[in-house]
Amino acid sequence: MSLVEQLVAHVVDLIGTRELRPGMRLLSVRAMADATGLSRCTVVQAYDKLEAQGLVSSRRGAGFFVCAQPQVPEVNGPEPAGACMPTGAYDTAFFLRSMFSGPGLGRHAPGAGLLPPGWLDLEMLRSAIRSVGRTAGSSLLSYGTPHGHRPLRQQIATLLQSQGVSAHPDLQMMTVGGVIQGLDLVVRSLLRAGDVVLVEDPGWFPVRGLLQALGLQVVGVPRRHDGPDLEALARLAESHQPRMFILNTAVHNPTGATLSVGVAHEVLRIAERFDFLLAEDDTFADFHPGVPVRLAALDRLQRVLLIGGFAKTLGGGLRVGYIAGHQALIRRLVDAKLLGCPTSPELGEQVVHRILADGQYRRHVDRLRQRLNQAQGRCLSALEALGCEIAHKPHAGMFIWADCGRDSEVLARAAVAQGLLLAPGVLFSPQAAPSRMLRVPVTLVEDATAWAHLAQLFASVPPTR
Amino acid sequence: MSLVEQLVAHVVDLIGTRELRPGMRLLSVRAMADATGLSRCTVVQAYDKLEAQGLVSSRRGAGFFVCAQPQVPEVNGPEPAGACMPTGAYDTAFFLRSMFSGPGLGRHAPGAGLLPPGWLDLEMLRSAIRSVGRTAGSSLLSYGTPHGHRPLRQQIATLLQSQGVSAHPDLQMMTVGGVIQGLDLVVRSLLRAGDVVLVEDPGWFPVRGLLQALGLQVVGVPRRHDGPDLEALARLAESHQPRMFILNTAVHNPTGATLSVGVAHEVLRIAERFDFLLAEDDTFADFHPGVPVRLAALDRLQRVLLIGGFAKTLGGGLRVGYIAGHQALIRRLVDAKLLGCPTSPELGEQVVHRILADGQYRRHVDRLRQRLNQAQGRCLSALEALGCEIAHKPHAGMFIWADCGRDSEVLARAAVAQGLLLAPGVLFSPQAAPSRMLRVPVTLVEDATAWAHLAQLFASVPPTR
Repeated sequence: MSLVEQLVAHVVDLIGTRELRPGMRLLSVRAMADATGLSRCTVVQAYDKLEAQGLVSSRRGAGFFVCAQPQVPEVNGPEPAGACMPTGAYDTAFFLRSMFSGPGLGRHAPGAGLLPPGWLDLEMLRSAIRSVGRTAGSSLLSYGTPHGHRPLRQQIATLLQSQGVSAHPDLQMMTVGGVIQGLDLVVRSLLRAGDVVLVEDPGWFPVRGLLQALGLQVVGVPRRHDGPDLEALARLAESHQPRMFILNTAVHNPTGATLSVGVAHEVLRIAERFDFLLAEDDTFADFHPGVPVRLAALDRLQRVLLIGGFAKTLGGGLRVGYIAGHQALIRRLVDAKLLGCPTSPELGEQVVHRILADGQYRRHVDRLRQRLNQAQGRCLSALEALGCEIAHKPHAGMFIWADCGRDSEVLARAAVAQGLLLAPGVLFSPQAAPSRMLRVPVTLVEDATAWAHLAQLFASVPPTR
Repeated sequence: MSLVEQLVAHVVDLIGTRELRPGMRLLSVRAMADATGLSRCTVVQAYDKLEAQGLVSSRRGAGFFVCAQPQVPEVNGPEPAGACMPTGAYDTAFFLRSMFSGPGLGRHAPGAGLLPPGWLDLEMLRSAIRSVGRTAGSSLLSYGTPHGHRPLRQQIATLLQSQGVSAHPDLQMMTVGGVIQGLDLVVRSLLRAGDVVLVEDPGWFPVRGLLQALGLQVVGVPRRHDGPDLEALARLAESHQPRMFILNTAVHNPTGATLSVGVAHEVLRIAERFDFLLAEDDTFADFHPGVPVRLAALDRLQRVLLIGGFAKTLGGGLRVGYIAGHQALIRRLVDAKLLGCPTSPELGEQVVHRILADGQYRRHVDRLRQRLNQAQGRCLSALEALGCEIAHKPHAGMFIWADCGRDSEVLARAAVAQGLLLAPGVLFSPQAAPSRMLRVPVTLVEDATAWAHLAQLFASVPPTR
């Protein structure tokens, strides 16, 4: 404990034992300094801390006085949990509420789609934060631009360039607060209520909730192992005249599959024929070994908006992402961001820039990829031992999309009762169709307790055939 | 320059002089270490940095190879400026684009509504960032909750409690990315296109743009020195059946006026009678000497949503703010945040928490307030010397709302031509009515060059009477 903290604790004690009662004046700074032998500066810091805690208040020229017992509710206990059992459907709303309710399910949420903290590199992050704290300039004091921290855009442009995507950091790029915020901005700015948007089936479920909340019509396109079902895509595009198609290309969520170059080419041809935009969600692309096929690379940012971020590789709490796209589209997105945002916090962007520029990022991601690859092998075996069928081994990434032989929603509801949040197939279906599929994070196999739970759940829910 | 940076610079030189040409292999790490006497670790770090710069690429097992000239556009020059002259109206869209266009007007934007960097405390911020970098836990690695960093909520609740506003940190409070993002969330979540929203006339202009973009109807309520014009408010509420009234209470933008307790009481009665919500924008309240009258305190968070932040006192780049309100409303806002955001970045929230908890914040704000007060006196005199009339001396804050005796939009357009962004009255009018009023930041009087510019402009635009 520092001297300041010791003095704070001493005064807190005196208030607790009511030797100092509400309305009483603390010793003056000078008198307290003399009485304790501490410097006046230390006393001032301690008094300021006590005031920040609501225990004393200062009156100009008169000193510091003990406050009436602070009436701020104590929140030392656990934070109130979010929804704990689905009252209705096991749907996106229930799932998100549970996933983000700090305690309870939020703490044991293998369904949640982040790597466990132990897999990530907290010290790399902290070191970058300290480095920004040493060198950050006055740009932190002003708003910055809605395009985002320029050195970060430059650095991401360099990364993308090395993978075949050319984006001008000033004209074809902007930062956003993560991929979901990027998608939110894109659909709010470029679409209108009633427009049809194509999504993948199965596909990442928060997108559906987002689109429906904005009054957009959502139509699912079946996803195959090499990309969207082209025949279905062409048919749906013709019949529904969509304005946009939102899809994962590299390391698809939930299947871990990756677009082939032939399918990518044809997707672009269909998009051109029916004149819709493509929002390419790049969330998991860094887990792809080698250079993935990106629509944005083939299309050279004409009708493709590439939306990426760092939640999976650096940490979910950073909320740093970007959009790369045609200059005219980026201009519209920046204008829309100006109205409601208006800039992304530069602090996180500086931290990510530091990590990327120092060259630590590639090695870190290489390590993650190797470890995920090993866990995937073990998890596949363990799932097969539970009787799951895996039609396609995932190409890479954090998940296995497993047929668990029984209604996975029944399994997930039983899991919730045990404090385990799973991601059943129903979430990934645009029609919320019943499903035997379960998205299993490969990291789960390393958690013996959670895996034993899962095995028990499988034993307790009978197979459907 | 560190050894790593020296080696990076050396290799960059060799690539520049084409001693190392595209496709050539760098010395192996071991050979380079032997050749230079550097440690292998240093060489690895330097090669990683070169790869992050896109100058070399690694092939597993084969080493590092010089890339073809990187095709990422060089952006060492000044960033492209935003709009430099209004092509049409001198409106919110033009103003925001100019204000946030890093270079050009963005650099000399006394209209922009932030304190100049020199007024703020960069070292306090940097020290808090370093402190977070030393102690941050693994919560940075996961998403956090949409309610926001809990210790920050607790700390803000303590601050508010000391000013008479009781808000439960878990149930009646959430964080947002600044006040404008908070307002965006509130109107998107609680209102529907076509709803009528009351705003102040004059009032903070980004609100109007935000509301109109969402298809809401905007109706202005005249603002007097002691708060909204009560008779007009009742009449407009009856005829328009609004769903919400958005207003500044303490230290109103642009006038610097503050709500009286009598008007506050009556505003709440009218809101109850016509059943609309109140969004109380607290942006400038910290500049108020003593405890300001807040609707949220009188109403005890029934129909008032209090929305505050730290852009003005700590820095615009942090993007940390909060909403306090009724438990049921906060629940709806959190659900909406989940869909499109879904959490605010915890890094900035931890930094703000550190500053508040250390008790530095109050002293810092006291200093700012005193300095603003002094500048206000000088600025009032200087404006009067220019022939401006000031009907009401502002109560506190960053601005003076001055009648400059000529159409202030004409003045502002002339200023833009000289690279100076002013905030003329037309921006603050819900009907974009012509106006002789100008929002003058009191800090401008400390910038002799900018003030001389202003005086020249006044001389060049003839008075309208």
